[in-house]
Amino acid sequence: MFNVLVSTQLSAAALLGRRCALPHRQCFRQLRALASTAVPAAEEQAGTQDRKVGVSKTQDSKGLVDVQPVRGTRDFGPEDYRLRQWLFDEFEAVSRLFGFEQFETPVLESEELFVRKAGEEITQQLYNFEDKGGRRVALRPELTPSLARLVLAQAGKLSFPAKWFAIGQCWRYERTTRGRRREHFQWNMDIIGVPGIAAEAELLAAIVLFLERVGLSSEDIVIKVSSRKVLQAILERYNVPEESVGPVSVVVDKMEKIPLDKVEEELAALGLSAEASSGIIEATRVGSLAELEGLLGVGNEAVLELQQLFSLAEGYGFADYLQLDTSCVRGLAYYTGMVFEGRDRAGQLRAIFGGGRYDRLLSTFGGEERPCAGFGFGDCVIVELLRDKGLLPSPPHEVEDLVVVMDEALRGHAAGIAQRLRRAGRRVDLVLESKKMKWVFKQAERCGAKRLVLVAPDEWEQGLVRVKNQATREETNIPVEQLVDV
Amino acid sequence: MFNVLVSTQLSAAALLGRRCALPHRQCFRQLRALASTAVPAAEEQAGTQDRKVGVSKTQDSKGLVDVQPVRGTRDFGPEDYRLRQWLFDEFEAVSRLFGFEQFETPVLESEELFVRKAGEEITQQLYNFEDKGGRRVALRPELTPSLARLVLAQAGKLSFPAKWFAIGQCWRYERTTRGRRREHFQWNMDIIGVPGIAAEAELLAAIVLFLERVGLSSEDIVIKVSSRKVLQAILERYNVPEESVGPVSVVVDKMEKIPLDKVEEELAALGLSAEASSGIIEATRVGSLAELEGLLGVGNEAVLELQQLFSLAEGYGFADYLQLDTSCVRGLAYYTGMVFEGRDRAGQLRAIFGGGRYDRLLSTFGGEERPCAGFGFGDCVIVELLRDKGLLPSPPHEVEDLVVVMDEALRGHAAGIAQRLRRAGRRVDLVLESKKMKWVFKQAERCGAKRLVLVAPDEWEQGLVRVKNQATREETNIPVEQLVDV
Repeated sequence: MFNVLVSTQLSAAALLGRRCALPHRQCFRQLRALASTAVPAAEEQAGTQDRKVGVSKTQDSKGLVDVQPVRGTRDFGPEDYRLRQWLFDEFEAVSRLFGFEQFETPVLESEELFVRKAGEEITQQLYNFEDKGGRRVALRPELTPSLARLVLAQAGKLSFPAKWFAIGQCWRYERTTRGRRREHFQWNMDIIGVPGIAAEAELLAAIVLFLERVGLSSEDIVIKVSSRKVLQAILERYNVPEESVGPVSVVVDKMEKIPLDKVEEELAALGLSAEASSGIIEATRVGSLAELEGLLGVGNEAVLELQQLFSLAEGYGFADYLQLDTSCVRGLAYYTGMVFEGRDRAGQLRAIFGGGRYDRLLSTFGGEERPCAGFGFGDCVIVELLRDKGLLPSPPHEVEDLVVVMDEALRGHAAGIAQRLRRAGRRVDLVLESKKMKWVFKQAERCGAKRLVLVAPDEWEQGLVRVKNQATREETNIPVEQLVDV
Repeated sequence: MFNVLVSTQLSAAALLGRRCALPHRQCFRQLRALASTAVPAAEEQAGTQDRKVGVSKTQDSKGLVDVQPVRGTRDFGPEDYRLRQWLFDEFEAVSRLFGFEQFETPVLESEELFVRKAGEEITQQLYNFEDKGGRRVALRPELTPSLARLVLAQAGKLSFPAKWFAIGQCWRYERTTRGRRREHFQWNMDIIGVPGIAAEAELLAAIVLFLERVGLSSEDIVIKVSSRKVLQAILERYNVPEESVGPVSVVVDKMEKIPLDKVEEELAALGLSAEASSGIIEATRVGSLAELEGLLGVGNEAVLELQQLFSLAEGYGFADYLQLDTSCVRGLAYYTGMVFEGRDRAGQLRAIFGGGRYDRLLSTFGGEERPCAGFGFGDCVIVELLRDKGLLPSPPHEVEDLVVVMDEALRGHAAGIAQRLRRAGRRVDLVLESKKMKWVFKQAERCGAKRLVLVAPDEWEQGLVRVKNQATREETNIPVEQLVDV
C-alpha cells in the first residue's frame, strides 16, 4: 500500500538542501538512526523481487529490459497514484481557498538559473547535463527560480501582488545509496509584490489549513521561525558586508550536520573574524523574543517583524504552531528576511516544509526588484508523518456500474448501454470479454461497483436489463431508459 | 489568451513520429503551408518582446538571465494553465467514466526502453543523454514503453484486464526551427489483457465521448481505421517474414511525406521484392471493406476484425466517425493489429490522436506476452481545432470573497475572518496591504470575487462586517458569525 511513497523514508533526507527538507538540528543524527532501520533493506528486497515478477524470456523476446524505473526515481501504479493524488488535491484545494492561481514551468531549465556561488548543497547536486546543441541544462532542483523567471517574462502583463502556486517534480543528482532518491514532488505557494509580514503570515495560514485538513494539529507540528535579519544585524556589528548574509546562512544551516569547529572554519573562510563568528553562533542560541530584543536592541527590524508575525498568527488562530528558533536559517542563499520551517513535535523526522522571504531574487536575475515570499512543501516527509499517525487514507478505485454482457450477440447493445450511462455522468466499467459470473462478482469488488448491470437475452427481448444493487444484493429488471435515473 | 498553447501551431508538426501526431496524408503539404503563415513569426516577435519586458539591470543585478523557458519548451502562466487544466480535466473525467485508473512513471527513463531498430522518427529524435554515473537515459518520447515496463514490474500483483490512463509530458530532441517544440503533453488510455476488438472499440468510445464533451461531432472529426494485419497478409503472400510488418509499416507511414520512388527504395532496402513492394502500395489504396475482402479473401482476419469494429461502433453509436483507410498504418513499429487515427474532416490539421493494438511489446521487453491496445492524444492539435471552431473556453480566475481591512489595526481580525471562511470551504483572497478602494474594486474584478468583505472600525465595534454583493452591488452589514452562511 503506497509502498513507493512511504518507502522513501530516507529519500527526504536524501533531499537535504532542498527547500522542503533542508538539514536542521538533529537531522544528521536521525539520518544515521534511520539508515540503520530495516526499511531500506526491505525496500531493496522488494525491488529485487519486482525485478523478477512477470518477467520471463519468451520466444519473441529480444532481451530483458530492467523493469525498475531509473535509479532514484519512483513509479506510481494506480494504488500509489490515488494516494499521491489525494495529497496533491489537498495542496491544490488549500491553494485555491487562498485565492492562489496555479502555474507550471518546464522540468528542464537552463543551468544558469540554479548556479549560485554560495556553496548550497542544492546547487552542488544539480542534475545538469549538456544537450545535443551544447546548451547547459538541468532538471530543476526547486521551483522558485523558475517562478522568478516566469514572473520576469510576464511582468508586463501581470498585476501585483501575484499569488501563485505550483506542484512540480524536482530533481537532484547524487550518488544513490539505500533509499536515497533523485526526485521528489514539491508544493510551492508564493506571493510576489507584498513587502510586509502579512505575506508570510498568509503563507503560514495556508500551510496550517492544509495540516488541519489532513488531521494534524499544533500538537503534532511546530513551525520554527526566525529572520535572516538577525544574522544581518550581527554581521553589521562586525562590519561584514550585507552580501555575506546568504553565504553565512548556508554555513550556519549546516550546524546540525557538521562539528562546530568546522562551522567556524567555514565562516573564517568567508572572511569572518573569530569575534563575528562567535557573535553569529551566539545569536543562533537565543531562546525568546525578549532575549533577541536584548541582543539586537529595541526597535531592531528583525524583532519588530517577528513580533508582528506572532501577532498576526494570533489573529489567524495558528499562534500555537509558532516557535522562535534563531538557529533556523534555511539552506538557500537567496532568503533575505523571515525564514520558517515545519517539524514534527516529536522530532523524529526531517523538515516537512520550509520557506521565507526572498526580496532580491528577481533583481539578481536582472529584473526589477520585487518583494517575494514563498514556501516549498515536499511529498515525502508529510506522508511518513501521516502514516506514523494512522492518518493516511487508502482511496479506493470506484465505479458506479459494472456492465456485463451475458451473450456475445448482445455486445453491441451492452456497449450502447455503457456509453449512455457514461454520457449521463456515471463511471462505468464494461466487461470486454466473455467471463464466468464468478469472475464478474470478483471484478465488481475490485472496481468497487455500486451496481451490476447484466445484459441478457431474455430480459433484453423485453427491453429490460437485470440490475443488481451491490449493497443490498437486491436484483431487479429495469427498462433500459430508466437505468440512468436509478 | 492561451498564447503558449495555441502558438504551437507548428509544434505538433514538429512532433511528427509521436503517437499523437504521426505523419499522414497531406501532412507534409500542410506543414509547408503552415510554415508560411504569420503565426510563427508573430510568436518569435512575442518571444523577443517578452525577453525585454520587466527585465532591466539594477544595482543589485549580477547579470541578466534569459527569461524564456528552455528552447522548444513552454511556460504555463495562470491563464494558460487554466485552459490546459480544463483540457486535462476532460481527459481525466472521460477516463474515469470508463473505469480507467491513473498511473504515472518518471519523465526520465532508461534509453534502452525506446531504442528500436525500425527507423522510427520517434527513436531517431530521442532526447537522450548520459547521466553523471555513465547511465544512458532519456526524457521519454512517449508513454507506452513506460506503461509496459510498469505492468511488467507489477505483474505479480495486478489483475487483468488492467485499464489504465496517464497524462504526461513527452520530449524529443530535434533542431528547433520556428515554432517547432521539444515537448508536448499526451493523454494515453490503455487496456492490457484483452485480445479482442472490444478493447479497441472501448478506447474509441472514450475518445468519442471526449470529443462530444468538448463540443465536437462526426461532422468535425473522422477516425481512420485499418489493421497491420492487412500488410501482414500481403507480406505473407510474398513470403516476407512477419517480423518485417513493423519496419515496413514505418516506411509506408512516410508515404505522404516522401516521394513514392523513395518509399519503394526504402522497402527494397528492407529486402522486399518489387512485386511485394507494389502489393503493399496497392493495399494502401483500398477504398472499402468489400474491396479489402476482395484483395485479401473472405475470412481474412483483418477483414473480420474490421467488420467487428464497425459493428461494435454501431452499438456504441459512433459508427459515423469511422472510415476505413488502409493507408493509415501509424509510424510506430510495435503495433500488431488494429491501428487508428483521428483527423479533422476539413483536412487542415495533423493527426489529433492515434493508437492501436500492440500485442507483443511486453514480450519484446522480456515479459510474458499479453494483448494490449491503447492510444495517445496530444495537447496541441486539439487546441488548434477547438480554437478554429470557437470552442475553446476561457476559464476565469474565481474566488468567492475578497476580504479587505480598512484599518491596519484590524488586520489580525480580518485574517481571522478570512481563515474562518476558508475553513468553511470558501475561496478567499485577502488584501495584504493598505490599498485605496479604487484598487480594491479593480482587484475584485480581477479575481472574480462574488463578495467584498470589508473589515472597518465602526462596524467591527458592533461585531459586524460590511459585505458588498458584486452582482447586485447591494451593501449590508452582517454579523461575523453569519458570514459563512450567506
